[in-house]
Amino acid sequence: MGKVYLIGAGPGAADLITVRGAKLLAQADVVLHDALVEPELLALCPQAKRIAVGKRCGKLSTSQRFINKRLVDAAYQHTTVVRLKGGDPMLFGRADEELAALEDAGIAYEIIPGITAAQAGAASLGRSLTLRGVARSIAFVTHAKAKDGEAQESPLASPSADTLVYYMARAHAVEIAQNLINSGHKRSTPVHLLESISTSRERTWSMTLDELADQSNSTESNRNDWQTSDQPLLVLIGDALAQRAGREINNGAQDRLILTDRRRSA
Amino acid sequence: MGKVYLIGAGPGAADLITVRGAKLLAQADVVLHDALVEPELLALCPQAKRIAVGKRCGKLSTSQRFINKRLVDAAYQHTTVVRLKGGDPMLFGRADEELAALEDAGIAYEIIPGITAAQAGAASLGRSLTLRGVARSIAFVTHAKAKDGEAQESPLASPSADTLVYYMARAHAVEIAQNLINSGHKRSTPVHLLESISTSRERTWSMTLDELADQSNSTESNRNDWQTSDQPLLVLIGDALAQRAGREINNGAQDRLILTDRRRSA
Repeated sequence: MGKVYLIGAGPGAADLITVRGAKLLAQADVVLHDALVEPELLALCPQAKRIAVGKRCGKLSTSQRFINKRLVDAAYQHTTVVRLKGGDPMLFGRADEELAALEDAGIAYEIIPGITAAQAGAASLGRSLTLRGVARSIAFVTHAKAKDGEAQESPLASPSADTLVYYMARAHAVEIAQNLINSGHKRSTPVHLLESISTSRERTWSMTLDELADQSNSTESNRNDWQTSDQPLLVLIGDALAQRAGREINNGAQDRLILTDRRRSA
Repeated sequence: MGKVYLIGAGPGAADLITVRGAKLLAQADVVLHDALVEPELLALCPQAKRIAVGKRCGKLSTSQRFINKRLVDAAYQHTTVVRLKGGDPMLFGRADEELAALEDAGIAYEIIPGITAAQAGAASLGRSLTLRGVARSIAFVTHAKAKDGEAQESPLASPSADTLVYYMARAHAVEIAQNLINSGHKRSTPVHLLESISTSRERTWSMTLDELADQSNSTESNRNDWQTSDQPLLVLIGDALAQRAGREINNGAQDRLILTDRRRSA
């Protein structure tokens, strides 16, 4: 009976996987991977049988029960089985269900963490997620609805933290911004929207919370182009994410802080 | 003039750095590293001049201003300068101050993210930080006081999220647990304390929130041994972190959930 390695593929770029993850990929007999994993990452395991097993935001996906079964079957047939998951397996990765299936079947496993999108996004923006004197806490949250009918709270409840990061947030981004303003967040709070982080297709949109909240009125013909992609969208919100110069200038006059850094906007 | 790479060293194990980080280390002319970075990581750059520049929890540390200056000076003298920081540079890493210094000096830089302790801790525990139907948000926070006199709020304000992770939490762990219970958190909420995550010295203590809150009465002679180390302590709190079997058994009877998984305790 084989061993299963749950490996975080990281945010996208093939060299942002861990050294341990890359070595195990190169040794794998079979790799069950998310549909969103980049081709460059699968090139790290040319020797392995590679099987796509969902999940793709809003598109074809494999049921979790079926993934669990394939994973257990693979471990009965092969020595080194890799389950390659986008980002970090322990963050919004539904690893728990796969681990439970492996435990029930008595199969040994090991988990190798991966860089999550928020970390790569912060690196790309050159903005710290926490900042001395400004942000000593950060929350990651998703409001994305699971395919198999998990209830969606309404209105969307945000965690409270100095910096907020929303995963798979395209459908809810405008509503999130409106709710944050209604609950007292400063309208000028910096917001960054990112997709395909760390890949050659990376796109970034920077604006204020106010500007994001206003995009609800956009019609199909003039909607902001961040709304039209089918890639997962990451939304980062918080004063720590302001332009460094802007932050200094506006020290003590936070309400007048205007984020002007759009150099990276598509 | 050289280029500076701010690289996340990851949680400790040398092969939990990213492939990109490891390659850049191998090419570096000079590496300025945190004192807490593992010797195994520094073995990845035998060719480089290696300089320890703080910071070590509660011990000797180099002032941030001095680190900034060394970084700028190194970039004037060398082609490839690496600033190697424990964990992820953008999470509790004070990267912002170093980036500002580089920008002021007109020095090019790139940031390479690293696995943060919470991710490696979750992998080690085999527990997901988020869990369908249980936890769709997670917050990272630190209450550690900066050396240079940043004000400490009192009582310690926790962010609100389904899973809570406290960094550098040894001095505040008991108070945090008491505050969470006072603000309505379930006494049986699972808690894991971890130190030296992913290294051969890794230690884990698992208990309930109630049990952690009770450790305030321990005297010097019988204090729980997690209180005596000088390594940074990570505290993970939340229902997602319960033993899988325990969670199933206690479905619908959450108040009676008792975490019994102490297999990894030292």
